[in-house]
Order: sequence, then structure tokens, then C-alpha cells
Amino acid sequence: MQNYAVDAKALGDFIKQIFMAAGLGDEDAGAVAELLVHADLRNVRSHGVLRTVPYLEKIQGGGVSKDSAYPVIKETVNTAVIDAQGGLGALVGEKAVEICREKAKDHGISMVVVKNSNHFGMGAHWALKLAGNDMIGFACSNTDLTMGPPGAREPFMGNNPFAFAFKAGEKYPEFCVDMATSLVAMGKCRDLAKRGKEIPSGWMLDRDGNDTTKVEDCYMMTTMAGHKGFGIALVVELFATLLSGGVLSPDINNQDLADTPELSSQCFACFNISAFRDLAEFQRDAENYIDRLHTLPMKEGMGTAKYPGEIEYGCKQLNTKEGVVLPETLVDDLAKTAKELGLDAAFLKTHPTDRQ
Amino acid sequence: MQNYAVDAKALGDFIKQIFMAAGLGDEDAGAVAELLVHADLRNVRSHGVLRTVPYLEKIQGGGVSKDSAYPVIKETVNTAVIDAQGGLGALVGEKAVEICREKAKDHGISMVVVKNSNHFGMGAHWALKLAGNDMIGFACSNTDLTMGPPGAREPFMGNNPFAFAFKAGEKYPEFCVDMATSLVAMGKCRDLAKRGKEIPSGWMLDRDGNDTTKVEDCYMMTTMAGHKGFGIALVVELFATLLSGGVLSPDINNQDLADTPELSSQCFACFNISAFRDLAEFQRDAENYIDRLHTLPMKEGMGTAKYPGEIEYGCKQLNTKEGVVLPETLVDDLAKTAKELGLDAAFLKTHPTDRQ
Repeated sequence: MQNYAVDAKALGDFIKQIFMAAGLGDEDAGAVAELLVHADLRNVRSHGVLRTVPYLEKIQGGGVSKDSAYPVIKETVNTAVIDAQGGLGALVGEKAVEICREKAKDHGISMVVVKNSNHFGMGAHWALKLAGNDMIGFACSNTDLTMGPPGAREPFMGNNPFAFAFKAGEKYPEFCVDMATSLVAMGKCRDLAKRGKEIPSGWMLDRDGNDTTKVEDCYMMTTMAGHKGFGIALVVELFATLLSGGVLSPDINNQDLADTPELSSQCFACFNISAFRDLAEFQRDAENYIDRLHTLPMKEGMGTAKYPGEIEYGCKQLNTKEGVVLPETLVDDLAKTAKELGLDAAFLKTHPTDRQ
Repeated sequence: MQNYAVDAKALGDFIKQIFMAAGLGDEDAGAVAELLVHADLRNVRSHGVLRTVPYLEKIQGGGVSKDSAYPVIKETVNTAVIDAQGGLGALVGEKAVEICREKAKDHGISMVVVKNSNHFGMGAHWALKLAGNDMIGFACSNTDLTMGPPGAREPFMGNNPFAFAFKAGEKYPEFCVDMATSLVAMGKCRDLAKRGKEIPSGWMLDRDGNDTTKVEDCYMMTTMAGHKGFGIALVVELFATLLSGGVLSPDINNQDLADTPELSSQCFACFNISAFRDLAEFQRDAENYIDRLHTLPMKEGMGTAKYPGEIEYGCKQLNTKEGVVLPETLVDDLAKTAKELGLDAAFLKTHPTDRQ
């Protein structure tokens, strides 16, 4: 399939226009575009601009509230609870980050929890924003039902992703651990399915809770590391849902429904490094630690050991310079949507590329 | 092998006397005994009273400082950094918990980090203490070198354990996620080795970084869930070591050296639930959530789905009533040590049991 290299800034402006045409304000549309393009910049394509159309359909279908007030229903000097009232995860996330960072400036550690929200996109986006240059950022979300404890025949929760980020000195500005608590991402299974391939054993379960390699029999995802991943998924539930008083996982809605909010819950936290030690010394030690990781003897063909987020940061640098890579099918989908909204999408196809 | 059921209170008093004979004060010896017996009560035997002799040897060998001042070297209203100065993990943990809970009472979220420490025992002990009835407790520690990133031929960190705990209503007072970031605990490998069995494929790596099933070739542990477990182990390193300014993992000492402190780092945190929502409502929702987990359809033979810590809490209730189960070899080791210190250990063998 033909791929196209698209300038990230131009892509962001284009996606922003799409959401403005759908009724979002200038700033709000910009925030959604930033979230999606950021994922493509880091090659986390499952959370990139391919989500534009589903997000748009959810706005048009009424599954997302266009009201972006998001009231703070409880607050202390370093905590807050926000009711997203079915709004866009991308927008309530912006508000949560702003409150969270402000509170951590003077109070060391802060946490903002959100209930009644929708899909908040790539966790790394939030963790990196929360971190800035001076804090450790943390973000997590419960997600719709896809996973149960080992041995279950029905799901009990989503694959509840979480992310931690911080700047590890000038050399490593984006240390970022970002993962779902399932063994593999659902996107990988969808990708194999599209290409007509079997799913590797151990990834997915059928309706009887047994391992399956057939796409058509997939019913649930397996947890990462068995009961350990189940435990971590419950910790996400604890901080996102139970602390916010949100809707418990078994009762939240499928994220793909255009007319119904997901009602997911999220948690954001900042840990201000200066509350613990001198920031420059912290960053020097962190940089030194990663320098040492890079010298670790590796098996042949493995390359150097990489810190979490290193590959994605490399992609971000390359894609910022040479453009985000979008496949033709996605470009055509975006162009079709643009046309319906009276926007011009011709620029998407000006730079065919062999990059993958 | 013959097992013995030993009353937990009597066992605690006995272990306390051993540590007092080794020079610890009344309160300090009691805290160490409480930590070890608590692990046996929860059937986490790898961290139970079998650690008495190694801990004792480390005190006698000078690898642990008997001074229990543990200065706070930096402090804010809700954060503190403690220099353990090579002291016992069990004792600096007590101090950290006290400070952490006190700070979280009025400041929502608190975090205490510790550097230059030693083995802090079962993580659940600390998470449960931090949690009490009204908070979420968190504890983690870096540990001596046993694990690297996938593809490594040398270790870069320990299997850095972490634990979260909270009271999920009266029915479920000890929800507790407690795990190491390795695929399996080293104790399981040692146990198989003792019984002359092969180690299952995927658990351990040899000196070339390749999978091995032979005990004699084991050099490193594998991470849980590949690069995901490596990422989580680094998050533990971030909160314990980098925030405290402690000794980086590649430089800490083997915990078994009797004459040298491990110099591990730890992190303790409290999240006061009332800062987010009404505590009674939180506990009602948590209890309801676990009630629902218990009704989840399971595969035949799997029993009901269990929340993290459920099995251990059941053991604690049983063992509190019927005694902690100790094998004859351990009882004999403890009796030998007691004799050297002029203590009577005859009571350990008064109740032979068939319990395992």
C-alpha cells in the first residue's frame, strides 16, 4: 500500500479544522488534534489520527458532550475530582493536567481524578504533559470490558493502561513507560486479522475462556503476566474509578458506541522532584543511569538496551523532521470526511513515501 | 518432612527475644519480629521467620547498623527523604510509615523515600500499614542485581517489588497487590532446585542471556511480561532510588553479604481517600466491586475469581487461629540459634501438624 509523509504541523491544523467544523471551539479542537498527532509522531498509530473519524462520529452521534465545563466536584490544595459529564477525554485531560501541575508546584504531590469521561487517547501524551521538565507525571484510565482474571469466562475490566514519564536530563527528555495491562495491545490483533493471519497462542481467549488463535473466536484478551497483570489492572481501577466515584468497569460502555458516552474514569498525578531533592542532581543521576543502560552487554542482534520511550522519542524526532507516515486507506478516509465538512485534504497526498 | 504449628504470638515473642539478644532494643526487636511473622501468617514464607538467621548474621557481621536514628535529610509538609545509613529495612520502614501516615492525614497525599537501606521484607506488610482503614498504601524497593531488560546478557537491576493495599469495606479488609517485577519469585526457583527438579522454560536465563531449565546455569531472572516488566522495574527504581538520591541499582550490594549493607532504596506513599470522596461510600463501592468479582463465571475447576490478597488474607485468618506452619528444618535452625543465644526453643515442637 502507498504511504504518504505528512508534515505534522499541517496535519495538526487539518485535524483541528475537522473538529472545529464539528462544532468544537478553536482551543478545544486544537487540543484534540494535538493528542492524535502526538501519537502518530511517536508511531503509536493505534491512538493517532486514525481515531479522527471515530471521535467525530461520537461527537456527531451525541456520545460525547460538546460542553467543556467539566466541574470540579471536590477539591483540596493537592487533590481534585472532576466530573467529565460525558465530555471528550482529550479535553477533560487538558483541564486535569493544568490543575494537577499547578497544585504540585506548591504542594509536592498532586492527584486529579476524573469520572464519566471518554477515551483519553495515548497515555504517554498525558504523562509527558504532567511531567514537564521538573516532575514525574502519571496517568491511567479504565477502559471498556476486554479482560478478566486468569481462568475467567467473562471479562471484568478493560486492559486499563497507565503511563509514567519524566525528563531524565537533556539527553533523555522523554523517559516514558506506557502500557496496557493486557499481554498485547488489541491493535496488534486487529492488524493480524486484517492481514488474514493467525493470532499467536496466549494472546486471546474464546467464549469458554480457552486460548484461541482464530480471529473469529476472540472474545477476551489475556492479562500480561497472568494474575500479576490482573492485579495491576485493578490498581488502575482503584485510582481511576474507585477514587473518583466513577462507574465501575463492568458497567461502562463500549467506546465504539457513537451515541453513548463510555463513562470511563481517569487518574492524573504529579510528583514534583524538587520536593525530594535538587532537580539538577536528579537529572544528572537519571542521565547517568540511562548512559549505563546503553552500555549493558546484549545478545547478538539485539542492539543496545533501550530505556522506556526511547524508540518512540526517536520516531518523534524523525517524524517531526520528515513527516508523519500515513497509509493510503487512512488518507482516503480523512479526505472523505474532510470533503463532507467542506475542507480541502489534497495536501495529504503531496509526498508519497517508501517509509513504513 | 514433619511440620509444626506454632502460635503466632508466641513465635513473635521468641523472634523478638532473638533480636534483643543480638543487641536490638525492645521496640526495634518487636518490629522485626512482627514483619517476619506477618509474612508467615500470610503464607509468604520466603519472607517469613526463615529470614531470622540471615538478618541476625547481618547484624552480627556488621552489614546492618544497630543505630536506628535514620535522619530525615529533606522534608516538606507531605514529603520526606530518609537516610537509613545502612540500618535494618524493618526499622527504617517503621519510621517511614509513621511519617507518611501522619503527613497524609492533613495533606491528602504523602510520600517518604529512603536511601542506604537494607532488605525491607514483605512489601505487603508496609502497604497494609500505610493503608490502615482510611488510605491507599504503597511501598516499593529496589533489590540487588538479578534482572535485565529483554535480550540482556548482564543484569541491570533487581526484581524490584512493589505493593498497593487498601481496606475494601468490612468484608475485605486487606485488598493487597504485592509482586516482584520478575516473571516468578526467586524463592520458587530455589524451592525446585532443593527438590532436584528442572526449572520451567521461560523463568531463568544463563550467562549468555539464553533460556535455561538447569539450576546450575541460572544467572538472571526474566522480567514479567518482557519489556513491560522491565519498564515497571524502572518505575520502582525511579521512585525509590532516583527520588531519594540513593545508590543506583548496578552499584548496590548483594543482600546476603553479612558484613556489607545492601544500600537499597525504598519508597512509601499514602493516598488519603477522604481527600477524594466520602470514605464510607468508597468502601461500599469497593466491597460491591469485589462482591461482583466473586460472581464472575469461571472455567471449571478454577473456583471463584479472587481479589489480590484474598488467598493471603485467608491464610492469615487460619494461621492466627491454628498457628503458623513451620517445617522441621526451619524449627531446628531457629532452635540452634536460640541455644547459642541462651534462649529456650522447646515450644516450637509442641504441636506437630499435617498442615502444609
